[in-house]
Amino acid sequence: MRPSRFDHWPCQIARSADLLGDPWVPMILRECTYGVSRFDEFQQRLSIGRNILSTRLARMVEQGLLEKEPYQDHPPRHRYRLTAKGHGATLILAAMVRFGDDFLFEQGRSPIVLRDRETGRRLRPIVVDEATGEPLDPANVVPAAGPGFPGGARLAREWFQPTQADERSSS
Amino acid sequence: MRPSRFDHWPCQIARSADLLGDPWVPMILRECTYGVSRFDEFQQRLSIGRNILSTRLARMVEQGLLEKEPYQDHPPRHRYRLTAKGHGATLILAAMVRFGDDFLFEQGRSPIVLRDRETGRRLRPIVVDEATGEPLDPANVVPAAGPGFPGGARLAREWFQPTQADERSSS
Repeated sequence: MRPSRFDHWPCQIARSADLLGDPWVPMILRECTYGVSRFDEFQQRLSIGRNILSTRLARMVEQGLLEKEPYQDHPPRHRYRLTAKGHGATLILAAMVRFGDDFLFEQGRSPIVLRDRETGRRLRPIVVDEATGEPLDPANVVPAAGPGFPGGARLAREWFQPTQADERSSS
Repeated sequence: MRPSRFDHWPCQIARSADLLGDPWVPMILRECTYGVSRFDEFQQRLSIGRNILSTRLARMVEQGLLEKEPYQDHPPRHRYRLTAKGHGATLILAAMVRFGDDFLFEQGRSPIVLRDRETGRRLRPIVVDEATGEPLDPANVVPAAGPGFPGGARLAREWFQPTQADERSSS
């Protein structure tokens, strides 16, 4: 159905985008964070076709985002829960919430807020550098070859030679 | 080409996922953060078909992620730059990088790292709560109705009644 797959690209962004590449997937993850776990409830809340939901859930289990467990024998019924990896992926959703607050909705008019489950306090996600706690300034963040970059140092230098950085930084 | 659009859903996650729903879009944004701005360079670095790239770039301009500006008259040539909104979207990519570090690649073997453009220092993105600086604990973050939730307070209560939160918190 999708023309291109990115699940073997040597890049965290490519593989994450592949996992989340179908927008139903973040929607299902969102429902999971809210506590939804049963097929029928996903189906009703998202108004998603049963066959579409079924293939998405199966793929998310296969990819390790969800685990499927029986909760009833007659008739057999399963529920879906976030794995640790699935929970991890919801932090990408948190970044989406913030992006939406900042760029997709009128200020103070966002349809969704995030709250602390226990205290109810509003949480405002922001992406910072772990070492300093400073918010990442997107204009100052540049991708570079990591330790797992394929093809060795020479290819990494070629791929990441900063020929255009001067142009970009003037924007 | 895509069966479902989410760009009118009342949810920051849905609309962000719609913007990034085609994995070529994060790939193009990644190249932009690196400084790539010209059609041919996107095309070569991503090994993407020219027609696919052309439609993606046009849509990203239309959506306000990129701006297109002429840099040559004979023959006419354009380059593409991130707008403020496009820069903002790259923070979702930063969250993807961290997710990939934590869940998609062997520890310390990620193909990509993020660096400070000026100092070269490695940046490790992490999603925190802006008020406290505490890392978001995905198991403790729950979506709720915001000020822009459509349909008023009653619908918000129905939609977000915590019927299953007890089950979820036991996982």
